[in-house]
Formats: sequence, C-alpha cells, structure tokens
Amino acid sequence: MDINEQVLKIGADAKAASRELAKLSTRKKNSILEAMADELDAQRIFIQEENAKDLVAGREAGLTNAMLDRLELTDDRIDSMIKGLRDVAVLTDPVGEQISTWNRPNGLEIHKRRVPIGVIGIIFESRPNVTCDAAALCFKTSNAVILRGGKEAIHSNLAIASAMQKGGETKGMPANCIQLIPTIDREAVKVMCQMVGYLDLIIPRGGESLIRAVMQMAHVPVIKHYTGVCHTYIDASANLSMGWKIAENAKCQRPGVCNAMETLLVHRDVAAEFLPKMGEILTEQKVEMRGDAATCALIPSAIAATEEDWSTEYVDLILSIKVVDGVEAAIQHINTYGSGHSDAIISEDEKATVQFLNEVDAATVYVNASTRFTDGAEFGMGAEIGVSTDKLHARGPMGLEELTTYKYVVEGKGQIRE
Amino acid sequence: MDINEQVLKIGADAKAASRELAKLSTRKKNSILEAMADELDAQRIFIQEENAKDLVAGREAGLTNAMLDRLELTDDRIDSMIKGLRDVAVLTDPVGEQISTWNRPNGLEIHKRRVPIGVIGIIFESRPNVTCDAAALCFKTSNAVILRGGKEAIHSNLAIASAMQKGGETKGMPANCIQLIPTIDREAVKVMCQMVGYLDLIIPRGGESLIRAVMQMAHVPVIKHYTGVCHTYIDASANLSMGWKIAENAKCQRPGVCNAMETLLVHRDVAAEFLPKMGEILTEQKVEMRGDAATCALIPSAIAATEEDWSTEYVDLILSIKVVDGVEAAIQHINTYGSGHSDAIISEDEKATVQFLNEVDAATVYVNASTRFTDGAEFGMGAEIGVSTDKLHARGPMGLEELTTYKYVVEGKGQIRE
Repeated sequence: MDINEQVLKIGADAKAASRELAKLSTRKKNSILEAMADELDAQRIFIQEENAKDLVAGREAGLTNAMLDRLELTDDRIDSMIKGLRDVAVLTDPVGEQISTWNRPNGLEIHKRRVPIGVIGIIFESRPNVTCDAAALCFKTSNAVILRGGKEAIHSNLAIASAMQKGGETKGMPANCIQLIPTIDREAVKVMCQMVGYLDLIIPRGGESLIRAVMQMAHVPVIKHYTGVCHTYIDASANLSMGWKIAENAKCQRPGVCNAMETLLVHRDVAAEFLPKMGEILTEQKVEMRGDAATCALIPSAIAATEEDWSTEYVDLILSIKVVDGVEAAIQHINTYGSGHSDAIISEDEKATVQFLNEVDAATVYVNASTRFTDGAEFGMGAEIGVSTDKLHARGPMGLEELTTYKYVVEGKGQIRE
Repeated sequence: MDINEQVLKIGADAKAASRELAKLSTRKKNSILEAMADELDAQRIFIQEENAKDLVAGREAGLTNAMLDRLELTDDRIDSMIKGLRDVAVLTDPVGEQISTWNRPNGLEIHKRRVPIGVIGIIFESRPNVTCDAAALCFKTSNAVILRGGKEAIHSNLAIASAMQKGGETKGMPANCIQLIPTIDREAVKVMCQMVGYLDLIIPRGGESLIRAVMQMAHVPVIKHYTGVCHTYIDASANLSMGWKIAENAKCQRPGVCNAMETLLVHRDVAAEFLPKMGEILTEQKVEMRGDAATCALIPSAIAATEEDWSTEYVDLILSIKVVDGVEAAIQHINTYGSGHSDAIISEDEKATVQFLNEVDAATVYVNASTRFTDGAEFGMGAEIGVSTDKLHARGPMGLEELTTYKYVVEGKGQIRE
C-alpha cells in the first residue's frame, strides 16, 4: 500500500469504529478508560524502551535539551498520563444529553440531542503525552481518533496508542477507535487533511507553521488552536496595585503558554504613575520590555518597539508596552493586532469596562483578572483538548462538550407536509 | 485595482463594518430592517429594470425557461422579499443572550454570551431573492455580509443589495454592512474563499459543483449545504397506511428540494404487502421507480437500479427502492449511501425505532413523519439561511441562533493564577 492508501484505510477503519463507538454506554466507556490506564501501567517498561529510541534518535538529530526534555517519558509523566485517564473516566459524559425539546403546532416533537462528532484527527508536535490526553477525551465523547504526532516522538506515540487500544479492547472497545499514523512521511498529513467523508474534524496543536500548513491543505473542517497575542489594558480608573499584580502574573507566571500576556496597554493619564514601578517589577523578573516612545520615556530600560512587536507572540520573557489615549484606543489596538484569544481590562469604571468587554473581539475577555485563566481546568471543564482561536463550533477552552455535535430527533404520528 | 485587491478591500471594509454593527441595539437593527423594506418598495421599478437586463442577457445566453423563471423578479417576488424583511425584524434577536453563567471557587464569574460571528460570505446561484433573504438574516444577527451571486443575476443582485444598504443607512446602518461582489469574474470567489482574517465563515448555497469548488479552495471555515439523499424506511411493524401516505408525501409533495425522499427502504417481511400498492401510488404520481431485484419482482413498472442510484440525489420524480432484511440493514444502507441530511423510520416497534434514531448518522432523524419537515420554518426557527449537512457549529436547519457564536466574559476582583 502506498501512503495514500494506507491513510485512507485508517480513515475508513476509523469511520467504521465510530459507528460502533456511538453504541457504547457511559459505564462501558468508563471501564474501558480504566483498562487503558491499567495497560499503560503494565506496559510502562516497554513504553520507556520505545521512548529511549526516540531520545537516542533525537540526540543524534541534534534536538535541543529543551526539546529532549519535552520528549522524555519519565515515571512521573507516565503516572500523570495514567491519572489523566482515570480523571477523564469520572467526568460527566455529555453524549446523549437532551439539549432542548419542543413541540410544533402540527404535533411533531423535536428533540435536539448531543451526539459524537464522528472521527477526529489530531495533528500535534513533540510531547508524546498528547497521544494519551487527546485520545482519552475523544474516546470519552465516543469519537474515533486518528493521531498524527511529530516524527521525533514516533516510537513513544505508537507505544502509547497501541497500549491504549489494547487495554481498551480487554473491556470491549471496538477495533480502531484509537489509531496513530505509523509513518513519519509528511504526505500522510496532506491525505488526512483532505479525507472528506472519513474525517469530520481536524484539530492541529502546535506552532504557527504547523497550523498554517494544515489550514492551507485542509478540505475537512479545522478548529485552530492558534497563537495567543493576549493584552492587558490598564484603564485610567484602574486600581494600580491590582494592575501591577495582574500584569506581573499574566506575563511571568508561565510565559511559554498561549494565555500569557504579550502586550501591556496603559491609559495615558496613569502612565507616569503606573509604568515606572511596572518597569521595576518586570526588570526584577528579567522581562525584556519593548515600548512606544511614551513608555521608553518612563521606563529607561525599555527598548523601542517595532511595528512587528505589536502582533508578536513571544511566549517568552519579553513584553511590548504602549501608552494609549483611552479604552477606545485600547480596543482598536487589540482588535487590530490581537489574535482573539484572551484580553483583560483593569478598571474600576463600569462604562469603560462594559465597552471593553463588548467590543474586544476575543474568545475570552476579562475584567480585573489575569489572562492566564483561559484554560479548560480553570474554567471548570475538567479537561481540555486545547483553546480554540476560531469562532465556529468552539471558541476558547474546548472541553468534552465541544467535542460533540447534535442531531435532531423528530417524533411524529404520521405527519405529512401540506 | 485588480480583482484580488478589489475583493480584499471589500473584506477589510466588511470587517470594519462588523465592529460597528456589533454595537447596534436590537431596536435600532429592527428599524433598519424596516427601512430596507421601505427602500426595496421605493426602488421596485429600478430593481425590475435591472432585472430585465439580466433576463435579456439570460435569453441571449440560452438559459432554459425554468432558469429564466427563477431569475425573474415579479411584483409578487418583490413583495415577498419586502415581507421577508419585515418578518425578520420581528424575530427575537439572539445576540447578547447569556447562554450560561457560573462561578469558580476562586471567585471568578464566567459568562458565556452569544455574539455575532463577524463577517459571513454567502456564495449562491440563480435566485436573486437570496440576496435579500441572506443579507437580512446576517444583519439581524449583527454580522456583516459579503454576497456573491450567480453571474446571470448580477444586475438584479446589485440593485437589491444597494437598495438594502441605502435604505438601512437612512436609519443609521454603518457603511459596508451589506456588500455584493460587483464582478462576475470567478477569480473573485477564490479570493473570497482564502480571505483569512476578513471572512469568518462561508456558506455556499447551490449545486454540488459549486459547493465542491468552494470546499476545495477555502481556507476560511465553510458550512456546507450539501445534497440531501434522504431515506424512508418502512419497518416490519409499520402502519402500512401511514407508510404509503408518508412515502408519497416525502417523494412527491415537492420533489425538487433537498429534504425530499430519494430512496425508499422496505422490510422484507412486509414488502409483498407494501410495495405493489406503493408502486400504484407512485405510478399515479408519475414517479420513475428504480429498484433492486426484490422490488422489481413486486412492482413490474420499476426498472433495475444501479449501484450509482443509491447515492444519487434526483431532486426529481425518480425514486430508488430497496428491500432490506431489517432495521440493522436499513441503518447500514443509510450510513453508507446517505448524505446525513434527513432520514425516517415508519415503525410501531419501539426497539427498532430507538435503534434507528440512535444509529442513523444524520442531521435529522424522524419516526413516523415525512422528511419534508427539515426546514427552519417547520422547526419553528422563524427563518433559515439553509440546511447544514456539516457536523460542526450548525447541523440541520440554520436559523438566527446558528449565525452567532459566543465569547466568555470573565469578571474578577484581582485574581491571579498561582
């Protein structure tokens, strides 16, 4: 079989698996998730042997230490995958929920019912634990999953996926519910992206170039988990102590993630009071500051920002800072340069707050809180497959519910259309 | 400006308009819709003059009488567009609705709020009234719209769109909320489909080739309104009188639409009783029947169906008929050959019914009713932009709610992430 045929067969098998999966009860699915956890535990040594192959190859290929670290499956990380599976088992199953029900004058009874999407493709990069986390969420929502990981983790990913499938089968999981593309050939991604009829959704998780490539190739629906160019705006009415604390948290608590702040906007009327101390705090935290002229005048250690800075996701200890004339200008800046992920206003003024919350076009908008809360667990979703920066189907943190769709079930007594 | 620049400018203008549109109150939007209706009425003669140009060109280009009929804007059809605008004005506005609200242990208050999608592209074929109907629904939900109609209706479409924009502006509608691509160059469709950042959604409405072309080209999200290969399955337990009545209705009441039945499946145990009379009814209605061997043995006037028939959307007085061994085989047939639009079981047996409703993978599944009810108005949505055969974001009839998305509004009191 060539790659095209090989991937299409995986697609057809997944579609068939999705039909069987849709018939499983919640209790059965939960026992399967537990069995997967048991099997991961039982295959711990094999998984680590396979992981070692990836680590050797990675060192030979000259991966950085940071990349090798992300790749490594330590005992702790395997424990954490196992715990993740057991946690997903106890989450409420959204499948089958009656979203709404109504009657029509002709007597038809219409039920809008939550159902699985079908077959979901996950295309991701380095961390092998994504194999386990993503497959567990797709399985819990009765979706078949086709995983495509990075080439540097191929042995680890295959070991994890096959342990999950094997463990699940001991408790009656249908064949092919969890499949991993076994080749590292990039052509496989293209075939996946265009597998209309077999694949109902692709979720790419990774860097900008991966997501762009998927978006360009895809003929099946894609929900992008894109960059987070997140803003915090300090309004003239802000409680400045709160502003310093929240801005520091949004930038520094974990700078390498998509909900970290990348740009700080400050109202002109409070800039002279707010920025010097903010500069001290950020200097203490070793944050490089890139500001407009007004900022650089107030923070001597800041360097001049370029136009490109305003739309850059640093995911690092770097921050761009701009002084603005008010909430209107802040909204304008965010809607021009932001990525629609998470943006916050720090304000005690209701009018400015309402305007900001209404007019900033982002998945999540905050008043007086850190953007770092945009996260499935922080939102109380129990688990997340990622954070959507798209507007269709799912926006913001995607939990179990966002991995489902609905169907209409209509009950009649012989009604015909006149 | 070349076509690329011209369409991108329309996109940028629409994006800017969408920001303004999101600020309008429901009351204001409704008064704008009324003003659009008034302006269409006032420009009735101009619209018909422009329509006459299309009709002349259409005759010269050799359009069929049926196509010319669809193109013509009679007084009645203009009245119907005007009435449509006033009807949309009185529908409930879904924008701003609090979908849900919850509190987190750290005191964060999370609101899931319904908001406009942004900019919607509608790509459609012959009927110029779509310009008005689609623009009205997009406007009511505070979305800017970019319309691209068929080349044979270009003068009519431009006249309608500009009357709506002009009428709306008298009541304060922002510029560029309703734009129509003014060129018939097909390149414009490609630019539209790839206008990431300006266009948030494309809805293609038309034949299979149009939808396929859009799907192949698009880099922005698409919700397809695809074919309807709809089935009715007559179970062994069916009330046969009800079956005859419903099957006749589903096939014959309006055969040219996507929710009409294309394939009739009959349980082997009742075929000998059900099919001969069904054949008489359909013959009376001038329906051409294409059956499997068992059907042809029971209906002498039926011709042999080919493999291709089972997946064909006839949208005509043609029906394929197959005898199956039971509900399992019916489900299998539908999930193999159907298009996921609308499928019905006629049955008095609860077990078979539940299995059918659960396992048929379609936007709408019926028991004991005609598939012809899959329609926004019949579902009580007030109006529809079409029927989605996709699974993401919107499935089945798409009303106003399906033209919205949501954002999370999070209220804090200084919370930071630990």
